Order: sequence, then structure tokens, then C-alpha cells
Amino acid sequence: MSTPLPPPRPSEADGLNPVLEDLLSRWAATAVARDQQGGHAAEERAALRASGLLDLTRPSAFGGQGVSWTGFYRVLARMAEVDSALAHLFAFHHLQLATVRIYGTPAQQAALLRDPPGRTRFWGNALNPLDRRTVARREGSGWVLDGSKRYCSGSVGADWLIVSGWQTEPEGLLIAALPATRAGVHVQEDWDAFGQKQTDSGSIRFEGVWVAPDEVLVAPGAPLSDWQTLRALISQLILTHLYLGLARGALAEGRRYLREQARPWFSAGVAQAIDDPIVQHRHGELHLKLRAAEAVAAEAVTALEAAWAQGEALDAAGRGAVAVATAEAKVLAHRASVEIASQIFELTGAGATSRRLGLDRYWRNARVHTLHDPIDQKLRDLGRHSLASRWPEPTPYG
Amino acid sequence: MSTPLPPPRPSEADGLNPVLEDLLSRWAATAVARDQQGGHAAEERAALRASGLLDLTRPSAFGGQGVSWTGFYRVLARMAEVDSALAHLFAFHHLQLATVRIYGTPAQQAALLRDPPGRTRFWGNALNPLDRRTVARREGSGWVLDGSKRYCSGSVGADWLIVSGWQTEPEGLLIAALPATRAGVHVQEDWDAFGQKQTDSGSIRFEGVWVAPDEVLVAPGAPLSDWQTLRALISQLILTHLYLGLARGALAEGRRYLREQARPWFSAGVAQAIDDPIVQHRHGELHLKLRAAEAVAAEAVTALEAAWAQGEALDAAGRGAVAVATAEAKVLAHRASVEIASQIFELTGAGATSRRLGLDRYWRNARVHTLHDPIDQKLRDLGRHSLASRWPEPTPYG
Amino acid sequence: MSTPLPPPRPSEADGLNPVLEDLLSRWAATAVARDQQGGHAAEERAALRASGLLDLTRPSAFGGQGVSWTGFYRVLARMAEVDSALAHLFAFHHLQLATVRIYGTPAQQAALLRDPPGRTRFWGNALNPLDRRTVARREGSGWVLDGSKRYCSGSVGADWLIVSGWQTEPEGLLIAALPATRAGVHVQEDWDAFGQKQTDSGSIRFEGVWVAPDEVLVAPGAPLSDWQTLRALISQLILTHLYLGLARGALAEGRRYLREQARPWFSAGVAQAIDDPIVQHRHGELHLKLRAAEAVAAEAVTALEAAWAQGEALDAAGRGAVAVATAEAKVLAHRASVEIASQIFELTGAGATSRRLGLDRYWRNARVHTLHDPIDQKLRDLGRHSLASRWPEPTPYG
Amino acid sequence: MSTPLPPPRPSEADGLNPVLEDLLSRWAATAVARDQQGGHAAEERAALRASGLLDLTRPSAFGGQGVSWTGFYRVLARMAEVDSALAHLFAFHHLQLATVRIYGTPAQQAALLRDPPGRTRFWGNALNPLDRRTVARREGSGWVLDGSKRYCSGSVGADWLIVSGWQTEPEGLLIAALPATRAGVHVQEDWDAFGQKQTDSGSIRFEGVWVAPDEVLVAPGAPLSDWQTLRALISQLILTHLYLGLARGALAEGRRYLREQARPWFSAGVAQAIDDPIVQHRHGELHLKLRAAEAVAAEAVTALEAAWAQGEALDAAGRGAVAVATAEAKVLAHRASVEIASQIFELTGAGATSRRLGLDRYWRNARVHTLHDPIDQKLRDLGRHSLASRWPEPTPYG
Repeated sequence: MSTPLPPPRPSEADGLNPVLEDLLSRWAATAVARDQQGGHAAEERAALRASGLLDLTRPSAFGGQGVSWTGFYRVLARMAEVDSALAHLFAFHHLQLATVRIYGTPAQQAALLRDPPGRTRFWGNALNPLDRRTVARREGSGWVLDGSKRYCSGSVGADWLIVSGWQTEPEGLLIAALPATRAGVHVQEDWDAFGQKQTDSGSIRFEGVWVAPDEVLVAPGAPLSDWQTLRALISQLILTHLYLGLARGALAEGRRYLREQARPWFSAGVAQAIDDPIVQHRHGELHLKLRAAEAVAAEAVTALEAAWAQGEALDAAGRGAVAVATAEAKVLAHRASVEIASQIFELTGAGATSRRLGLDRYWRNARVHTLHDPIDQKLRDLGRHSLASRWPEPTPYG
Repeated sequence: MSTPLPPPRPSEADGLNPVLEDLLSRWAATAVARDQQGGHAAEERAALRASGLLDLTRPSAFGGQGVSWTGFYRVLARMAEVDSALAHLFAFHHLQLATVRIYGTPAQQAALLRDPPGRTRFWGNALNPLDRRTVARREGSGWVLDGSKRYCSGSVGADWLIVSGWQTEPEGLLIAALPATRAGVHVQEDWDAFGQKQTDSGSIRFEGVWVAPDEVLVAPGAPLSDWQTLRALISQLILTHLYLGLARGALAEGRRYLREQARPWFSAGVAQAIDDPIVQHRHGELHLKLRAAEAVAAEAVTALEAAWAQGEALDAAGRGAVAVATAEAKVLAHRASVEIASQIFELTGAGATSRRLGLDRYWRNARVHTLHDPIDQKLRDLGRHSLASRWPEPTPYG
Repeated sequence: MSTPLPPPRPSEADGLNPVLEDLLSRWAATAVARDQQGGHAAEERAALRASGLLDLTRPSAFGGQGVSWTGFYRVLARMAEVDSALAHLFAFHHLQLATVRIYGTPAQQAALLRDPPGRTRFWGNALNPLDRRTVARREGSGWVLDGSKRYCSGSVGADWLIVSGWQTEPEGLLIAALPATRAGVHVQEDWDAFGQKQTDSGSIRFEGVWVAPDEVLVAPGAPLSDWQTLRALISQLILTHLYLGLARGALAEGRRYLREQARPWFSAGVAQAIDDPIVQHRHGELHLKLRAAEAVAAEAVTALEAAWAQGEALDAAGRGAVAVATAEAKVLAHRASVEIASQIFELTGAGATSRRLGLDRYWRNARVHTLHDPIDQKLRDLGRHSLASRWPEPTPYG
Repeated sequence: MSTPLPPPRPSEADGLNPVLEDLLSRWAATAVARDQQGGHAAEERAALRASGLLDLTRPSAFGGQGVSWTGFYRVLARMAEVDSALAHLFAFHHLQLATVRIYGTPAQQAALLRDPPGRTRFWGNALNPLDRRTVARREGSGWVLDGSKRYCSGSVGADWLIVSGWQTEPEGLLIAALPATRAGVHVQEDWDAFGQKQTDSGSIRFEGVWVAPDEVLVAPGAPLSDWQTLRALISQLILTHLYLGLARGALAEGRRYLREQARPWFSAGVAQAIDDPIVQHRHGELHLKLRAAEAVAAEAVTALEAAWAQGEALDAAGRGAVAVATAEAKVLAHRASVEIASQIFELTGAGATSRRLGLDRYWRNARVHTLHDPIDQKLRDLGRHSLASRWPEPTPYG
């Protein structure tokens, strides 16, 4: 039972990464089975680590490949075409690296971005600004974390974690980097969504977890510069490219089924399903949903690159322009993924619903992943910006 | 792990069927588990038989309840709110009864519509006019069937079957009623779609299956009257009401989650999710998709009742008007089911994707069931009728 | 330069009103010219008065035809197919009659609903609850009105007016019936919208206008019964049926052009434009937009009839059910009119944009008329009702 | 009665052309009046000629500004924001220059692209490949044209024309450049569409019009290289940028009205209309329609520039890629213009329909101009390309 790999898009063939393609060809063969099975992605994490792709965005000064955001997002979308759950693991590892780059002191960067010899750290996420159940309490020169937190992407099997805790007096969010083996950190393998099953998104229970001063990336109440708030936009563009990959994958599978297995409708009067003008027309509509999302996403990444390059010189307007472009891209990619994944079936007919093919996984994956934060809020941000010239307020969600 | 029952719509409370509601309250409690498990609906079939609902449309002359199409479709949609796979089993049993009423001679009706004492026959479907792999060959005064056929709804566990076979010389479709125990009939439990799992839609292999002359309902090439072609429209309205039930169920579950579990978005500035104007607005849109489909479906059923009552006096224009109304209803209900089942999640947030809740089953069920025949062809029929005053050509699909 | 009359819909042929059809055939011949010209509809008002259609909803006790709401809305939609501006004049006359029936005492009804011999009063509207510039001041046993008011539909050329004035201490709306010749009433012919040009919707300036006690229909602050608040829903269903008529007219004209004048696209490979599958499909979509709106509107009218028949026995829930059905119908009809009027051109090609044909008037008329009150508020009402079981709050807008 | 100028988009401020802005500020002041009046754009043509903008794409070798396609389309879209009819005149002048560059011999280019001293030729279009009523007949070394042709954009008032004629034996299209003063060329001022009124799109009657051999750009049956077929794509991108300008103009006017004149709905509970979350959300949707179209159009222009630079080295695949990108951009821009121009009114309320404001002209202009060729055919091309890897067939329409 294997899923043939969708062909990489011609326009991207130049930048094709053979290491990635090799990994993907193996993952494609097991994608349907792993989607049905779910569970911890132990073997796939090992393959990712072995591939070197965990080093992709690590600065070359710290032994990484130093790839740009543009390059990273291209790899991410390509990976998500084949397996969007593993792509999420991959992406959130890089988001944590970015978190260290953005918030960390030079000393912290040196310590956390360079891995110990022979062992690439796989980072997971335990930062959830809306979930205030994990409390950070001052103790001596550090903090102690207690409480629980859900939706910790990539936490099951992670080596290190970016964690957050809510301090109540005075109010503020603590962000820190900890080894997953720290005493009191209990990662639970309890993610049970109907899609994106292998994202290792466990809950974490914190029981008297010590956070040393030099592990703190952002102390509660510490102000963030405009440049530092780009972190939320990097994260939103991760979601965006994951959706783009899902949309491409769904469209490619729908196309393949239509070419190879679908029969024309008996009254359409054509020899092959793909010759039916109505089929062509509707497929053209789906194609165009994707293309619009891709083009706007490309502009958003370009805007991010420019803002990123400015460093601390970036001001609110510069940051705001990236936020607007990112919100635009996110809404379009969100819709492209959910709608294409649902609508490809209009053209395939009932045969495409066999569990052996597993074509429903695109919708399930897209549907689960697109619920990270509501697009209606993004549309409202866009309208407010256009109407009242107000930049979106920087939050952890954009 | 139980699914609370969506409340019956107030407007229908009057006609509430307590036997049905009792059945549904039991099915609701196991719906999520049965969706995950799939497999033969042996126990649920037994409950259906015990409930007396298999007699719903059986004419009272033959010991049935003699309920009108209007009453039947109301029960069907209500059942599909809770379990659309079992609703399909129920509906296709009644479609086979209708087939006997439409095609059968008085003697056949007497023999097939009145059940033996103490044993209600559960009918299944083995009529698939597009699948010509099962061949009917003249032998003596009867026919012999050989070949295979897929998508036989309700065939696993059926007592009797309406079967079809393709005769090649001269070309034509044989339709007959057979006991499922007839020698050479091999029902296979091989339905593996990602939704509508408990429809018992097996494949059937026919090996030299004898069809006696008095079992033949339609001989190959026998002309059908306009009234007889209503069978396809009864079937299309079964699909339509199944979709309506799915849409109602999805909307009701989305509403319940939103009321009971969803939290407002942090920047919306409201106390409860249901107070957010944007949430209200979007939910209003979903509600309206359903309402439009319901209102048009009600008109289609009214048109069917009128045409049905005309009997053989029905002419092509009378039949055509029902076909147009049915196509309209089918397209709207198709879209309501798929779109509502997908879009309810926009309002619920990520918590609603837990497999324990099983809320994705509405989309999976709607997506699989709506692929029976393409709505684009229905839209084309509607356009052609409006533009060129051509009635849709009677086919097994409308 | 004449516009052929769109054929009445077959389903309504039974109830065809020959007086109406005669009127419409004359109006159709001048519709394009009158749309370009605009201005006061003096001649058309005279024809309406002569036709007897102003008596349509007048109770038979007062010499009218006593037609039901169902019958009235059918006539209205048919009229709007041909000329939606004149249909508005016609409808708002009947809305004012309804206002007298709903708010008036028996004595007022006797005085206002029965016309003087030989002279049918043509009623116009000067009730605008959002426009508080016209102030009502207590004076003796009556009131005096001062100020101005815009969007007074049918005021230019009206015999009698239903007027409103805002009393500031204590706050409340005065509603009264006055002859248009009352001293101090200055109707201005200043309506200049780009559509619905012949609605005679002037501004009115009130200068010390005396309102006698027996002319007052609703005194400021007087409570309204649930039944009395049906007035707003009767008005909303007037808008709804005007939109339906516009949608039908636009679709019919688009169809006629497509059948009679459009050429198939050179690469479509068909002999006539109406044979192109993509044309059929898209026209089918437009047809379906209309059908959904029609079916829901029919349900709303049925709900209104039932509530109307209850009289003062009607309670908030009974009223609320009509309000929900009306909001549903209004949103669908609004969209059908604007979207069909815009999208018919996708199928016709450039030749259909000639000013001689005047086909843009459907969009202009629909666009202007649909701005009476925002449908987004209706959608919000619908969502709130579905989510929180709250009936829409009775207002002058629903 | 003046229309304030929509602000140029900030992102384009850098490339702002002061000559253009000066022209636009004058045109904005008369746009509403000229839209109502229609008729020949004599004065505006003179202003265009005086501005030097007719030289924009003329190669510098021939005394022009040598601006790239990118620069030209940016100016075009900006112009169309303010006046899409004049923008069409401007664009079709440049399309004729491009026609000479693409089809002309070096000698023809020298003769036709360099204007006589002190007199800039204003070019108009009389090339219409679907209208075969103008016949080209061989006579001696040249041809003679007879017949008529409609939709000749910019022909009224043109100095020179690119004309086409259909030769029947053997079949083929003759394309030539002629002075508008050539004997037998009768331009008629008979364009009467309800939008795009000042495009000077007259009909032309040809009576025995002599075409000298050195005036022929393409002889009937002469093969075109892949590079030469870019002409149709340059033309399609002209339409695309005209639509983008219309969409921007409509959105900007809607925004301005909403900010400056609209009142919040009484039940929305906000102080200004632009604070209503539902208004923000819907405006965000409109903004996003435009943004998607802009981003895809930018990619199409980039593709065109690359293909253009290849010259005769361009192959079918290279040409096809531009055709696909152009079709994508055209469909999105088409929809953005029509939908935004219609939907801005949902947010403004009835006051925005005053003829003094003339806000309906965006819809009328977009509606007329988008009927050049059907987008459904483009969608079909896109679907066929995606499904069957077939490049769109080069035609005069893409």
C-alpha cells in the first residue's frame, strides 16, 4: 500500500533538494498507513535528524546550513505535500531555533544553537500564550513552573523545549529553553485529533520545574522590539506554507486519480474524464485557488525577508506591512487547503473514497491544522487596516 | 463515549415519531464508536426490524403503515441527523419496496410486499445500471446472472435483493427480485470507504444465478412509463434527505460545541463565543445554506407526491417538473451537507477535532455519500431546462 | 425601443391577473426609456389607479378586493419583473393601507380605508424611523411637525401620506396619516439614485404641519402588540418580493439574449451558445440562486399569513418565527437579485451591454433597492437565533 | 461636482509618475460628469498627447521613453483607478505600438514607430479577429478591404489604425497599419455601451480601402512565431491591469465613503461604521480579492518580461507558461473588479447611490470591459493545462 509521490512543481525543480526528495519518497510509501495508525513519529524523527534537515535554518556560524526563510518555506511546503504532520514537526523545530535567535542573548545563542558533537537536538514546543494553566513563580534568581499545557507540538520525543509559563504578579509571560529531561517535565502522548496525527503534540504537566536564570529567553513583562515580534509572523507563515503544501498535495492526488482512474460520466459524451469541459473548468477553479494563495504567500515571504534583514532598525510600520501580507497569505492558504481537499472529490467520483487510497487525509489534516487561530480575526485585521490605517496589533498570533 | 442526541427541530416536533426517537437515542450513544469501527450493522438492523420502521412505506393493504413520501422523507432526514449510514440502510430498504410497487405486477406485489408471518424481509440493493459487469443471459423461460457488482447498499445481511443484469443481445437491463439466499449469490463484506461505513455496501459476485420468470420486474428492453421513471427521482430524493439530515446534524453539533465548550477569541472582547458578532454572522450563513436546501426539498417532495398520485396518467412534462425540482433540491442539499460539515470547525476551534467527539464524521459521511452521481450534471440539466425548455432526460440518476 | 415582456412563470400562470398583464405589457414597452429618463411617474400612477390594482389588499368591507398577502406578493413580484420602480410605488401604497389596518382604530380604518366616491387615494410613505430630523411637538390636543425627511417612497404625487415625527421629550415616534395637501407639507422631487428612478422617493420638508388627534395612528411611546410589529415584516417581505421580481426579470432577459442573440464562443465547438455545457452549467447556477430564494420566500409568506390570522393572539414566539423566516428570505432574495443581475452578462458577451437594451438596469435597480437595510444584520440575527435561541428584536427593519 | 483622487497605493509611491498624477487629478474632477455624458474624448486625448505618455513604451531608439512592460502596466492600472475608459484609449495605443514592434519589419518599425516631428500619432484599433465581415481581397501587389467592423477601440479620433481583414481564399487574416485618413475608411461614433463610454470604440466601414504592400504587417496565412503570439498575452494583461485599476478605484471610493459619510447601523453598537466588526470583516474580504489578483498579475508580468526578453528564442513551453500565468491573472482581476464594484455598496448604505457620486460607474465600466472574452474559457484552459499538461492554444484571445 503505497502513495506515489506527487511530482515536485516544475517551477521549483531547480531548487530541488535531493536529500529531501529521498526522505519524501520513503514517507510517501507509508503516509496512508501512518495516517491511519497515528502515534509517535519516532522512526520519522530519526530519519529527519539523519537527513541533516534539522540544520537547515541554523546559522552557519553555529554549524548549520544557514538557509533563508525563502528556502526554508519552500522545503516546508514541499514536505507538507507528502506528509503535513511530519512537516509540522520539522517546522516547529525550526521555529524554536528562530525563537532562540530572536530572544536569546549571544551567550544563549552560542549555547543553544550549537549542538553538542554527534547529537542534533530536536526541539519541541511548549509555548502556548493562551493557555495560562502553567504558572511561573519567582524562586531565588530563577523561576519554578507548575501546571499543565496542551497542544505542545513536537513535544513527544523532543530533546529540548521552548516553554512558557504565566506569572500572575505582576502579570506576564515567561519564555525559556529547557531540556525535555528536566525534572518535573512530564510529556504525555495524548494527542487525539482526527488529523495531523503524527505531530507528537502531547500535553505537558509541569511539576515544580526549575528554570535557571540563563535559561530565560523572555522574562515576564520584558518589552519586545518590533523585530522580535516577527516571531509570530514567522510562525504564521509556517502555518501558511503547511496549508499550501496540503493544497498542492490534494490537488495533485485529485489530478492523478482523475487521469488514471476516473471514468467520464455516461452522459458527458467524452472518452476520458479529463476531456469533459465541466471537469476542466472546475479543476481550473481549484488550481486558481491554490495559485492565488501561492502568489500572495510569495509576497509575504519577500516582505518578511526584508524586515528580518533590518534587525532592530525595523519599526512598527515595517513590521505592520509584514503582518498584513502574512494575514493575507494565511487566509488564502487556509481556504485553499480546506476547500481543495474537500472539493477534489467532486471530480473523482465514489471510487476515490476507498480507505486504501486515504485521500480524505488531506481534508482531515487541513481541517485540524487550520484551527490554530481563526481566519475571521485575520480578515477583520485586514479590513481594519484598509479602513482605518491601523496595523494589526502584534500578538502571538500575528 | 456517547454523542448526545441533537434536538429534533421544533417545527417537526409535532410529527415526532416516538419509536424513531427511542431508536435514535440508542444509536446516538454508539455513533462515534461505530463510525470508528465500521463493519456490518447486524445489531442495528435487528433494532430497525424490531422497531417496525421497515413497514413505514409498505402499503396498508400489505400490512404496512402506508406512510406518504412526505412522512417517509421526514423520518429519513431525522434518522440521518444521528446516523447517516443506518439511515441509508433504512432508505434503501424502502427504495426496494418502491421498486416492487413501481415495476411489479399485482401478483408480484402481493408476493413481495406482504412478508411471511413473523418475519419482516430486509431488502438490499443490487441494482447498478452503470456497472455492466454482471451479465444476464436468457435461459429457458428465465435468465441466468454471472459477474460481479459493487456498491450494493445494504446487501450484507439483506434477506431479499433487487438485482440487475446487463443483457448484451439485444442490449437492455434486467431487473429482478431475488432472495439473498439464492444459489450463486455471493455477498462480500468489502466496502472500505472513509465514510458511511455501516451501509453494508458489499460487492456481490453472481455465479450462474437463476432468475425465474415471475421474479423478473423489468425485462431487458421493456419500455418504462413516465410514472415508472419516478423511481429514479424517489431515489434522488432519498439522497437529498440524507444530505439534509447530515447538514442538520453537523450544524447542531457545531452549535452545541460552540455553546457549551468553545471559548471566545481573546481579542473579540465578548464573554461567550456565541456573543461574537462575527461568529453569529458566520453561523447565520451556515444556517441559511441549510434552510435554502430544506425549502427547495420540501417543494420537490410536494411535486413528487402530486406526480405519484397521478399514476399512469403522468406525462413527460409532469415527470419533468419533478425531475427539475429534485435536481434543484439535490444540488442545494449536497452543498449544504459538505460545506456545513466542513465549515462548522471555523467557529469551534481546535478542541472540536478530538477523535472522542468524532465531529469529522459528518464531513466524511457527506463526502462519501454525495459522490453517488455528480451535481455538475444536475446543474447542467437545470441550465438546459431553463435555457432550452428541455426536461431532464429520464435516467437511473434523475 | 421596446422591451418584450418576460413570460410569466408557468407555475404561476393559473393565478395570472389579466389586468396586471395588460398594464405590464404597456410598461415593458417603455421600461428602458423610462429608466434612462427617470423623473415623476405621473402617467404610470394614473394607469395603476385606473387598473384597480390599488384596491388589491383593501379589505372587501371597504370596497377592496381583499386579496391575501400571498396574492399580493405574487402580483408584486410579477410587476417587479417588468418594472421594479413602479412595483415599489404599488407596494408602498399597500404598505400604507396595511399601516392603517394595523395601527388604526375602527373609526380611523373606516375613514382612511374607504375612499371617497370616484377617487382612489394613492398613498405614499413619509415614515422613516432612523431619520430623526423631523420633530413632533405637542400642541393642544394634537402635534406639530417640523423638519425634513428623505427617502419618502411614493411621496411625489401621493394623495395621502403616512408620516412619522420624532418627539424628544419623552422620546418616541409619532405615526400619523395626513393628506399630502396639508399646509406645510413640501414634497421635493429630488431623488437622484442611479437606480429605482421612478419611485417618486422625494424628500419632504415639514413646516409647522398640524396633526389632529384623530390622525394619529401611534402616539409617541405607545406600546405595540406583537401582532402590530408584523408591519415591519410585511415591509421586509415587500422588499423580498421586489428582489425576487428583479432576479426573475434579469434571468429572463439574460436567457432571451442568450437564446436569440448570443453567439457561441469560437473554441466551444457548439452550434448555439445554449448548447455549450459550461454555459448551461453556469446558467443552472443562476437559476438555482433564484429558486432557493423563491422557495424560502414562499415559506415566509405562509408563516406571515398564519401569524396575521392570529391577530392579537399572536405572541412573541409566533412573531419571532415569522421574523426568522423573513430574514432568511430577504438575504437570499437580496443576493439573488444583485448576483443574477450582474452575472447574466458572463454568458451574453459584449453585445448585451448596449444602452438600447438597457440590461444594466436590473443591477442598478437591485443595487439601489437592496440598500434599504443591511443583510449582514439579518445574518447576525439568524445566527443569534440559531445559537442562542433569541428571536430577532422587533424593530422597524424586521 | 468633483471626484477626489484615490490616493496612489503606498507600495507604488516610489514609482509615482508626476506627469501622470497631474493628468489624473484633472480627470478625476470630471470623471463623474464625463461618465454621464459619454461621447468622444477629444479633450482628454489632447491632454494625453501633450503629457508625453503616448511615448511611454516606444523604444528609446525611436524617441520614446522605452519603459518596460512592468512600468507600463503600473501606469495603466493607476490610470484605470481614476478613469478606466481613458485608460483603455491609452493602453490600446500602446498595444498598436507593440503590434508594430512584434510584426513589423525593421523598415516598418522605423517608419511607424518614429513619429513625424511635432506630431505624436495616436493609434487606434481596428483589428478584430472574430469579426469576419471585413474582407481582404488581393489586388495587384496589395489588398483591398471592404466591409464593416465593430468594437474598434480608440478608432474615433485616431491618427493611425491597426486593421484586419479576412481573406477567404485561401483563408487567413490580413493585419496592416493604415492612416485613419485613408480613403474609404469611415469611422462611426456609434459606441453605446452602458459603461466604458469614452473609449471611442466606434464601428468602421471599409469601402474599397487600399492596403499597400509595405503597410502589411501580417499577410494572410503567414506563420507566427511563439514570440509573436505574445501579442495576445500583452493584450490580455492590458485587460487585467485595467480590471485591477477598476477594482482599486472602487475599493478606494467605497473606503472613503465609509470613512467620511457612512453612519453605523443603529443596532451595531459602535460609534463609527468602520468600527463595526462585521464591516471590517467584509471589507477585509474585498481587500483580499484585490490582493490575490494583484499578486498573481505581478507574477504574470514577470513571466511576460522574461519571455519577451527571449525574442525568437522563445519556444512553445516558454510561451505557454506566460499564457497560463496570464489566464490566472485575468480571471482573478475580472472577478475582483466586478465583485468589488458591486459589493462595496453592501457597506455604504443607500446614500452612496446618488448620481452625484457616480459610484455605480465602477460596476458599469467593469461589467462592460470584462466581456471582451469569456473567463470560463480561461478557466477551462487552466484546468486542461493542469490535468493534461496542454498549454493553452495560442489565439488572439490568449
